Amino acid sequence: MNYRMMGKFLSQILFFEALFMIPALCISLVNHESAAIKGFLITIVILTILITILYLLCKDAPSGFYAKDGLACVGITWIVMGLLGCLPFYISREIPSYIDSFFEIVSGFTTTGSSILPEVESLSRGILYWRSFSHWVGGMGVLVFLLAIASVNKRSSGFTMHLLRAESPGPDVGKLVPKMKQTAEILYLIYIAITILNIIFLLIGHMPLFDSICTAFGTAGTGGFGIKNDSIASYSPYLQNVCTVFMLLFGVNFSCYYLLLVKQFKSVWKDEELRLYLGIVFGSIALITWNLHGFYKTFEETVRHAAFQVATVITTTGFATTNFDLWPSFSKSILLVLMLVGACAGSTGGGFKVGRFLFLMKNLRRNIRQVLHPQKVMVVRNNNHVVNEKVVDNVNAYLAAYILIIIFSYILISLDGFSITTNISAVIACFNNIGPGFDAVGPTCNFGAYSAFSKLVLIMDMLAGRLEIFPILILFSRSTWTHR
Amino acid sequence: MNYRMMGKFLSQILFFEALFMIPALCISLVNHESAAIKGFLITIVILTILITILYLLCKDAPSGFYAKDGLACVGITWIVMGLLGCLPFYISREIPSYIDSFFEIVSGFTTTGSSILPEVESLSRGILYWRSFSHWVGGMGVLVFLLAIASVNKRSSGFTMHLLRAESPGPDVGKLVPKMKQTAEILYLIYIAITILNIIFLLIGHMPLFDSICTAFGTAGTGGFGIKNDSIASYSPYLQNVCTVFMLLFGVNFSCYYLLLVKQFKSVWKDEELRLYLGIVFGSIALITWNLHGFYKTFEETVRHAAFQVATVITTTGFATTNFDLWPSFSKSILLVLMLVGACAGSTGGGFKVGRFLFLMKNLRRNIRQVLHPQKVMVVRNNNHVVNEKVVDNVNAYLAAYILIIIFSYILISLDGFSITTNISAVIACFNNIGPGFDAVGPTCNFGAYSAFSKLVLIMDMLAGRLEIFPILILFSRSTWTHR
Repeated sequence: MNYRMMGKFLSQILFFEALFMIPALCISLVNHESAAIKGFLITIVILTILITILYLLCKDAPSGFYAKDGLACVGITWIVMGLLGCLPFYISREIPSYIDSFFEIVSGFTTTGSSILPEVESLSRGILYWRSFSHWVGGMGVLVFLLAIASVNKRSSGFTMHLLRAESPGPDVGKLVPKMKQTAEILYLIYIAITILNIIFLLIGHMPLFDSICTAFGTAGTGGFGIKNDSIASYSPYLQNVCTVFMLLFGVNFSCYYLLLVKQFKSVWKDEELRLYLGIVFGSIALITWNLHGFYKTFEETVRHAAFQVATVITTTGFATTNFDLWPSFSKSILLVLMLVGACAGSTGGGFKVGRFLFLMKNLRRNIRQVLHPQKVMVVRNNNHVVNEKVVDNVNAYLAAYILIIIFSYILISLDGFSITTNISAVIACFNNIGPGFDAVGPTCNFGAYSAFSKLVLIMDMLAGRLEIFPILILFSRSTWTHR
Repeated sequence: MNYRMMGKFLSQILFFEALFMIPALCISLVNHESAAIKGFLITIVILTILITILYLLCKDAPSGFYAKDGLACVGITWIVMGLLGCLPFYISREIPSYIDSFFEIVSGFTTTGSSILPEVESLSRGILYWRSFSHWVGGMGVLVFLLAIASVNKRSSGFTMHLLRAESPGPDVGKLVPKMKQTAEILYLIYIAITILNIIFLLIGHMPLFDSICTAFGTAGTGGFGIKNDSIASYSPYLQNVCTVFMLLFGVNFSCYYLLLVKQFKSVWKDEELRLYLGIVFGSIALITWNLHGFYKTFEETVRHAAFQVATVITTTGFATTNFDLWPSFSKSILLVLMLVGACAGSTGGGFKVGRFLFLMKNLRRNIRQVLHPQKVMVVRNNNHVVNEKVVDNVNAYLAAYILIIIFSYILISLDGFSITTNISAVIACFNNIGPGFDAVGPTCNFGAYSAFSKLVLIMDMLAGRLEIFPILILFSRSTWTHR
């Protein structure tokens, strides 16, 4: 492990974390929120000291960085970002417990949206902004941001490739354009553009500016932190529908938007993952609408709630307009399964990813066909390209890791004695970066009742889910920490 | 598809099904149970007619049988065996609904042990015997039985190999000895020997002969049908412990017993699957005993119930001595996970199988190591042999199919409106051939409340679980039914 390279890199990330706190600090200054001001100021001072120390210690880092270093580096960066990013919550005493603050900010950065707070309206505006902003920056990734704006010299180009691969979601990360830095730039520009569009549409519906920005942050990162106690329920139907549409848009692979920009409409239209994603979305909305017959007064209301909940769950956002825990069993089952599937690869959404699901189905079909025709050599195809067997094997290993992590986490947090449904859905909600689960962690409840130990387990789940397991799993391997 | 070969083969299987009903008929005759006598007699007559027709139509079947034919044949055989084997229940009116009777006998043959009966003590002895016997013959497999006693000519030796592979549980079915027929013989002899041993140990504990035979059948097949309403709870602690030990014995890969017979003690001692199985069993017993502290009066009682429940769940038997649905959440979580893991490959137990679990862990470890050392070529080893990549790929496809089936079944049966826990555990309990689940299908409840449609889904799950998915899945593929 190249510790000094990592230290140098960490100092850059922390610099941006401090920088990102300044708008939040300004909002607190404008609103005369003294506790929050204190929280942000002290945190920024601590960050500055740490950045200086790290920079001085590691400025002459040797080059040479391996894939494992990239993975471990991403894992460590995210943990440190959480440990320091939660300080404003804790120092301002708006969240009095450190572990709760840590849970809340990791839930923010990983775009999970699970909260330990029973209500959010008593929080100061600066803190609310910081909480929502953590979704936005976590959605596309802090490291991708760094890549987009930092100057990359040749020496570290392999390094940045490893980083981008580790932080970007999906089974097969490709570059949009040959250069890594440009890819990161394009991704962030698309991200910013759609976020601004989202804010504009919310403003048109007469949502206040502060609400619009925070809601758009939560939507863009597919995070789910709201600034109202009832999430999105008290906003107008128009605003709820805007959220539905934008949640679904942010669940699409961003390379599709790039292809639209360069006018490759046919490739977008033929993208198998996108088709499956839209098929699942509209199929689920139809089934739930049918199942909810008579549950709401009008057909419009039924479709609106069904569409909103499907969008919030499949994109793993976690906003709520209604308490779906009261829905009939069939609708709840569909939502539970959508939680597992998740959004498209290369989007800001979490979960197992529609693309991986597609690979699994195709590999399974190949295995069945292989039994029927043992002589034929068969390959898995995606968008008419033959998929490398390594990618297929990797998706399989990912599934195994995914299930093992769910099982182990589930056993560990069940020590707290909650019901089976609560524990399973809590793990799935955190690991897939969704937010609310069912039962005692349902849309109208929170994660505050879990013990500190369980919260730590769930924090690791959130990180493992956002970073797609391996950057976190690798931290537990001894050979990561030994010198090569 | 070679339909006539299949018909011929089916006639042989149905012949044995009729033959197996004769002891049950005799028991009914001795006990003067007129309804049951009528049930068995009419069924035997129907079977005889069918056997004759099938034999006459298919006696000159052409040779030539492919792997897919073997798989499809096993799937169809099991379905037909169920459709006809349930007739005694239905004709005797002891189970008044045909779909319920079908559910009950498939639950028997697949060694699931889920029941739709609220109580069993009112059933006649002949019916009780037939119900328990279905576990015994389903445990090792009817086709394996046929292979063991039928004369196999050269023409159909490839065919029998396909059949044995399709009916035997585990990721990598090997022959114990070069000849298939001998392998089947050895398996059945070991099976009969341990069953007799089990009966003797039960008789020593003063269990009546009839009870001993039925209980041993349920234990040997890891099925779980009892002949008392409270399953094993009313028997003495000694008898409960005998059941615990024998359930665990029947969950071991039978090739281990063969190796013991030929004095290869070292191979047994070093068998990785066996070690992991025992490790999981004793680890779980220890954890549950610790978690149940204070739940029962004495330490002996706690350990006894913990060991019994761990054995009944991991071997997927489904006997009960206590209502584990009342246990604390942590213990229940462990049991739920054990339900998923299942017993050893090549045993009569169901579930995902410890061996497959081991492969998954090893493949995952390889994938992580591959990231750490990208240049190295790595293989998966089992008992110091390199595992063929095809087997690894197959285990992965199996996992995918396993999860997809659980998800689809869960969504379908949730139409009935039961709770999430009920539905998930019902699917897992049927698909893994366990028996009881949690909540409304817990150890003191039954599956009777589900709709006929859900029962059909669960029946397919039981069959898919027992036959390890592919023989059933293949029936839904169009190309299985077309002429090659």
